[in-house]
Amino acid sequence: MTSSTGDITGRIVAVLGGTGPQGRGLARRWAAAGIPVVIGSRSAERAAETATELAAATGGVVSGADNATAAEQGDVVVVAVPWDGHRDLLAGLAPLLAGKVVVDCVNPLGFDNQGAYALPVDEGSAAQQAQAVLPEATVVAAFHHVSAVLLDDPDVASVDMDVLVLGEERAATDLVQALADAIPGMRGVFAGRLRNAHQVEALTANLISINRRYKAHAGVKVSDV
Amino acid sequence: MTSSTGDITGRIVAVLGGTGPQGRGLARRWAAAGIPVVIGSRSAERAAETATELAAATGGVVSGADNATAAEQGDVVVVAVPWDGHRDLLAGLAPLLAGKVVVDCVNPLGFDNQGAYALPVDEGSAAQQAQAVLPEATVVAAFHHVSAVLLDDPDVASVDMDVLVLGEERAATDLVQALADAIPGMRGVFAGRLRNAHQVEALTANLISINRRYKAHAGVKVSDV
Repeated sequence: MTSSTGDITGRIVAVLGGTGPQGRGLARRWAAAGIPVVIGSRSAERAAETATELAAATGGVVSGADNATAAEQGDVVVVAVPWDGHRDLLAGLAPLLAGKVVVDCVNPLGFDNQGAYALPVDEGSAAQQAQAVLPEATVVAAFHHVSAVLLDDPDVASVDMDVLVLGEERAATDLVQALADAIPGMRGVFAGRLRNAHQVEALTANLISINRRYKAHAGVKVSDV
Repeated sequence: MTSSTGDITGRIVAVLGGTGPQGRGLARRWAAAGIPVVIGSRSAERAAETATELAAATGGVVSGADNATAAEQGDVVVVAVPWDGHRDLLAGLAPLLAGKVVVDCVNPLGFDNQGAYALPVDEGSAAQQAQAVLPEATVVAAFHHVSAVLLDDPDVASVDMDVLVLGEERAATDLVQALADAIPGMRGVFAGRLRNAHQVEALTANLISINRRYKAHAGVKVSDV
């Protein structure tokens, strides 16, 4: 019922911040699904190490490079970097990302002794900041709530959750829904325009509270869809 | 696994704005579950009409009154009023709500030709505004995402969704989880403190986008809990 017309056949997915837990977990799943992946990192050496590990673990096609090279090689570029430095990284890559679909997974959160909370973002959300910095790219917000622990655990065969996908252009959100659908158990659900990305990013703070209370790796599912 | 120690036995639930779609739907479900309900409305007459209808439909104990009388009679007071007027209504009822658990379901949303979007709230969220205006009450945020259409449809036996419950005091959030658990199909899940209520309220805008795309009455479920 959520099936989109997005086709990821033959697309190379670059994951900036692909050596971090969230990026690495997504890269592992896409590689296992037969999607060619380029791991990007500040350190090309660490990216290559992670790529070698994931290729061996999944039998997939995974390479590693510095973030700029990964951005250049990817047909679709997933941004899974820390919030701190998000804007500067993307601004530096803007010429390389022009014309591409950029998938922003970043959650602007602060942490204190009461747990996580949403940080204010001048542009409204990390995704809107990315779009402001990358006017020639098509930014889609998605994969905020995926559990890095579950994604990166080879014993978890199915990652049973929905991915809320937000963006302005149907072709781009369809493509990103297909990227979610490619991971067993996961489903991409279109969930609105980028102006409604803030609350999706911020909801990660609630999932952290849920995880703490219930000792879980909580994700979101959409009922009646 | 989410079972709380909250006990609603013998508690009267007042629903302010109980003649509106969301309040009426919740009131119907609680009445059907054997919980005594007082419908509150600006108009005592309309409240009495709705109460008579729901009592006949459910076989439950339902009465109607103006909002102030309902606030006085309820042991737990659910606020399901429009965002416009939220603050003024609660400020006027503050003495009546002192010492009570107040459940805020209000979603501060704007609408334009692109759909729904989150409105900024000075206090951070409707729930935090309620707590600021009602310092002697214990405010809990919950029931933001419930579909009024499904709740108020007697042919829908089970309303299959989770209710995110936010608050500062465990006894109060447990009680509100029990109120969610009392509705067949529904489950209350603790989802953090009031400072993280904004994104839960705002997520209703995304559900509206989902409903539009998929012709659904979408709700949220939490996976792995």
